Amino acid sequence: MNQIFRNDIADLLARRRKGRPLEAPFYTSAEIFDLDLRLIFARHWIFVAVEPDVPEPGDFITVAIGAASVVILRDDAMDIRAFHNVCRHRGARIVNQPKGFVGNLLCPYHNWTYDLTGNLIHTGSMAPDFDPRCHGLKPVHLRRLEGLIFICLADAPPEDFDDMARQVGPYIAPHRLSDLKIAAQSEIIEEGNWKLTIENNRECFHCGNHPELLQSLFHFFGYSAEDVTAEDRAQYELFTRTQAEFEAIWEANGLPWRPIEQLEGRPTAFRVERLAMAEAGESFTLDTRAACRKPVAPFSTMRLGTQHVHLQPNSWFHFLSDHVVTFSVFPLAADRTLVCTRWLVHKDAIEGVDYDIDTLTKVWQATNAQDGNFVAWAQAGIGDPAYEPGPLSPTEYMVENFDTWYCERLSAELQHPGAG
Amino acid sequence: MNQIFRNDIADLLARRRKGRPLEAPFYTSAEIFDLDLRLIFARHWIFVAVEPDVPEPGDFITVAIGAASVVILRDDAMDIRAFHNVCRHRGARIVNQPKGFVGNLLCPYHNWTYDLTGNLIHTGSMAPDFDPRCHGLKPVHLRRLEGLIFICLADAPPEDFDDMARQVGPYIAPHRLSDLKIAAQSEIIEEGNWKLTIENNRECFHCGNHPELLQSLFHFFGYSAEDVTAEDRAQYELFTRTQAEFEAIWEANGLPWRPIEQLEGRPTAFRVERLAMAEAGESFTLDTRAACRKPVAPFSTMRLGTQHVHLQPNSWFHFLSDHVVTFSVFPLAADRTLVCTRWLVHKDAIEGVDYDIDTLTKVWQATNAQDGNFVAWAQAGIGDPAYEPGPLSPTEYMVENFDTWYCERLSAELQHPGAG
Amino acid sequence: MNQIFRNDIADLLARRRKGRPLEAPFYTSAEIFDLDLRLIFARHWIFVAVEPDVPEPGDFITVAIGAASVVILRDDAMDIRAFHNVCRHRGARIVNQPKGFVGNLLCPYHNWTYDLTGNLIHTGSMAPDFDPRCHGLKPVHLRRLEGLIFICLADAPPEDFDDMARQVGPYIAPHRLSDLKIAAQSEIIEEGNWKLTIENNRECFHCGNHPELLQSLFHFFGYSAEDVTAEDRAQYELFTRTQAEFEAIWEANGLPWRPIEQLEGRPTAFRVERLAMAEAGESFTLDTRAACRKPVAPFSTMRLGTQHVHLQPNSWFHFLSDHVVTFSVFPLAADRTLVCTRWLVHKDAIEGVDYDIDTLTKVWQATNAQDGNFVAWAQAGIGDPAYEPGPLSPTEYMVENFDTWYCERLSAELQHPGAG
Repeated sequence: MNQIFRNDIADLLARRRKGRPLEAPFYTSAEIFDLDLRLIFARHWIFVAVEPDVPEPGDFITVAIGAASVVILRDDAMDIRAFHNVCRHRGARIVNQPKGFVGNLLCPYHNWTYDLTGNLIHTGSMAPDFDPRCHGLKPVHLRRLEGLIFICLADAPPEDFDDMARQVGPYIAPHRLSDLKIAAQSEIIEEGNWKLTIENNRECFHCGNHPELLQSLFHFFGYSAEDVTAEDRAQYELFTRTQAEFEAIWEANGLPWRPIEQLEGRPTAFRVERLAMAEAGESFTLDTRAACRKPVAPFSTMRLGTQHVHLQPNSWFHFLSDHVVTFSVFPLAADRTLVCTRWLVHKDAIEGVDYDIDTLTKVWQATNAQDGNFVAWAQAGIGDPAYEPGPLSPTEYMVENFDTWYCERLSAELQHPGAG
Repeated sequence: MNQIFRNDIADLLARRRKGRPLEAPFYTSAEIFDLDLRLIFARHWIFVAVEPDVPEPGDFITVAIGAASVVILRDDAMDIRAFHNVCRHRGARIVNQPKGFVGNLLCPYHNWTYDLTGNLIHTGSMAPDFDPRCHGLKPVHLRRLEGLIFICLADAPPEDFDDMARQVGPYIAPHRLSDLKIAAQSEIIEEGNWKLTIENNRECFHCGNHPELLQSLFHFFGYSAEDVTAEDRAQYELFTRTQAEFEAIWEANGLPWRPIEQLEGRPTAFRVERLAMAEAGESFTLDTRAACRKPVAPFSTMRLGTQHVHLQPNSWFHFLSDHVVTFSVFPLAADRTLVCTRWLVHKDAIEGVDYDIDTLTKVWQATNAQDGNFVAWAQAGIGDPAYEPGPLSPTEYMVENFDTWYCERLSAELQHPGAG
Repeated sequence: MNQIFRNDIADLLARRRKGRPLEAPFYTSAEIFDLDLRLIFARHWIFVAVEPDVPEPGDFITVAIGAASVVILRDDAMDIRAFHNVCRHRGARIVNQPKGFVGNLLCPYHNWTYDLTGNLIHTGSMAPDFDPRCHGLKPVHLRRLEGLIFICLADAPPEDFDDMARQVGPYIAPHRLSDLKIAAQSEIIEEGNWKLTIENNRECFHCGNHPELLQSLFHFFGYSAEDVTAEDRAQYELFTRTQAEFEAIWEANGLPWRPIEQLEGRPTAFRVERLAMAEAGESFTLDTRAACRKPVAPFSTMRLGTQHVHLQPNSWFHFLSDHVVTFSVFPLAADRTLVCTRWLVHKDAIEGVDYDIDTLTKVWQATNAQDGNFVAWAQAGIGDPAYEPGPLSPTEYMVENFDTWYCERLSAELQHPGAG
């Protein structure tokens, strides 16, 4: 990174105004996009998969983070491992499918072969002094949290993962992710910067434009009592009453529910909150009833609302009685972002009997598509020379949190040797 | 803009040779393209629309100039206004359609709402100290000239618009643009730099390759008597005789016709000239007869030839007895240019009775397509390392004028604070 | 080229490790791609065509090398000439088809006209002092070698072409390229850097993944005896016995066959080697029999194996008894490369009688497609931050040769004035 650009970035970070979104270059500049990949996505814990992606030995998926491709697989000892998807000979991509099953990892170019622990076990003609033990696949740091899989591309990953895991784990463990199966998944590309995707996820000020979601969601995520307008007052009171009802249910089921919010001031920032849902209160469906008859665990009721989890930089989750939805975000370009969504149900649930895909996925498919539009419109306008960051609503305080975290992390990582 | 690039540009401008087109970087460099957007297209008066685009209150169109989007609308008081199409909250594009009708301008993201004069009239939950009066839509300078609509993105637009309007207005007023309707319009993308599109428009040295256009056009636009080759002599004499005939008709109809040419030495440069046409001399049609039976105004005859208007940087026009054609040019990339064409006829003319679209548009649809090829071939060759600017024909003197104007304007704007 | 980039390149060249492929920027950087075009492809002899591309006067083809387009044509005196495909007036591309037949070269924009020797013979109206003799088409250096056509865009082409021609000519002359016709040709785009395409061509360590090719090819191209693994031993002995048999046949037909390898240390580097083929040993077909019943010359047998020729930077060839295959490589972007393949047979051979296209082309069509995958996978992995150049197999020594040549040439050309 050259000095001029380093100074530009420092200026941009220094003049950030609290209470407003970021200035345009953070969303539009190819150079800052490159920094985001190198300093945010390559140096933090990235949520990439769930254990049900690789249930059996030899199962693998590939994940792309910028130009980096990582193979995540289950080995014969049932461990889950991550490797850089680059042959140690002449660099070819070894695995060229998004997922599958393998006995060994065979490079399709010159047939160099690695076992599932990454050891190089076959090469063909090499010089007499060639040592295969020095040419195993390069491992990638991987951590598991109650069925969620995270990787970090850095040599020295952030050390606060364990602390996050200790706090978040009890909230999600009851939903037994490892016992679920992926019933459906989707990948959509949003025509905007990844930070717009995250910011969009961090406020419900726009939720009036999510008609399907509003069937089950009280749109007061992020609102405090003083933010509620006169026309919303009655609805808000219903929400607070309902939330109190649900707290009793959560207590009765031994489910932790008190919000924890640590969205700034740490690398592995997070937020958890259990929320009541409207009407039947069971699931993100149009009729608010469970989408899957078989619960993910033996709860006393399907009426559990939703456990929200937000993890920085790139993911959020909903844990319900009948299913779990995971969202992960991957930057493709300054103005293009991949959003991966997985819907998980109990592994013994039978499609067509216990659940159907359309009912299960309808609300978030629709909501994702709407969010894709919002992000695209925001990207277009932010790229306009007339853009200036406007005032956030108090209900958008988590957008502010995220932007603060992002600026903190960028500043901190820019100090490190090798930042540029 | 960094100092190295500023020096490169200064060198390129300094070594320009008169009598030849520009050097390759002016047509191919992404950096100069960016300058063209910022110093030419954002600081001059740009022709973008006609009053018949927005006949009624609430009618709007959107116009893109580089990354800037501008909404042009008619308000309830029948004024025409232009606003930056960027929400003052988080910057989303407010209007995402090319044209339509609205009561208010509603941002589709968080529903901030503006009235047709740009005032912010609704927001939802904001902090107590939020003042909507400070967050209206940003206006864009707009000027009207006898039914033509121009905008300027600069804070301080060129002051010579009025002088241009005073000179050009009398030539076009008789064609009563405000009483017309848009009968057809087209948008094509030419695979070349916008300056090639304009240069192509400024000479008829290539008109031999426009067979449809040559039915009605004498191809001596830009020629003086000494430029005429032996084989063209008879045709040229026919042209000069016909032109004298038409001058009498123009005088009889009270139509100003003497050419004015101010293509250099001023920001809002222009040229007007009324020209005889061949055969019946009525219109740009294959049989040279009027394409619309209802004249745009009560002239004594349909045989009026054409009133050419050229305006720098981005437009040209033909005003005829039976219709008006407008052309506007918008740079999309160093090697891509949008050309918008509108055909207007009297608002009471009835399609299928007084005119048909195919007859009305055939000549310029064909000519536009041919010009698109010429521009693409020029762009390809100019991008070749073997390119060097060759000698212009004397008949291409308006190409020279345009290039001189462009270099003048670039030099002048580079002196201004904020140029880079 | 600015000083920072010049230093970066010098560092990259200085730290090159022998025995390993190049570092990633050589394959991925847009700046180095630009250097490759300017210092390698514009300053060396590039194989672009064969005489049968332009058998008759007026026949032409166009060839693109980066942004440069060159017309190669046969003039009325049967000479073959090359010209920059750029009009000397305003720079338009003159010829916009890949091949065809013309009487003169007519610029389609303003109809400037050049004869087949490049003289400007018509312009229309120009100023009285305009001298057409100063505005002929710019010629491009062209050399012929036994039916192969090479061009060089530099003012002063490498002087060692003649030496190469003197050595290579006798090997290929017996295959009488000028008496052949192009029976088939293909253009494919490989999603990788052009150097990966060449490197891939220079080793058979990957040939196990070419099942169609292995029908006729012993996969020991590049192997010495000590490189052969235990499992390949028997096959290798068959190869050495067969090679000895073929040597007798070549001698009997007066065909030079001893390998010459000058792949480093000179601008116009090359390699020739005549190789036995398996089974019937006649051709690159699935059944190893001739694909064309009419031999390219009156040999005593169809069983001639293949004469390999490799020429740096961009071509390779197979000369057989029944046909000739030529390959030429053109960089399109850092990660995109055009590969052109021509299959030539005797000009009197009749399609459907003496040969059919499918049999003739099947093996190299399949092999090209497979190589396209290898190159794409290598490009993807080399672009990964985890890539580091790994150890080459001894059988890949010609990859090493090529990379050495490339670094030599880049270093040498960077010393020349005008390099940047």
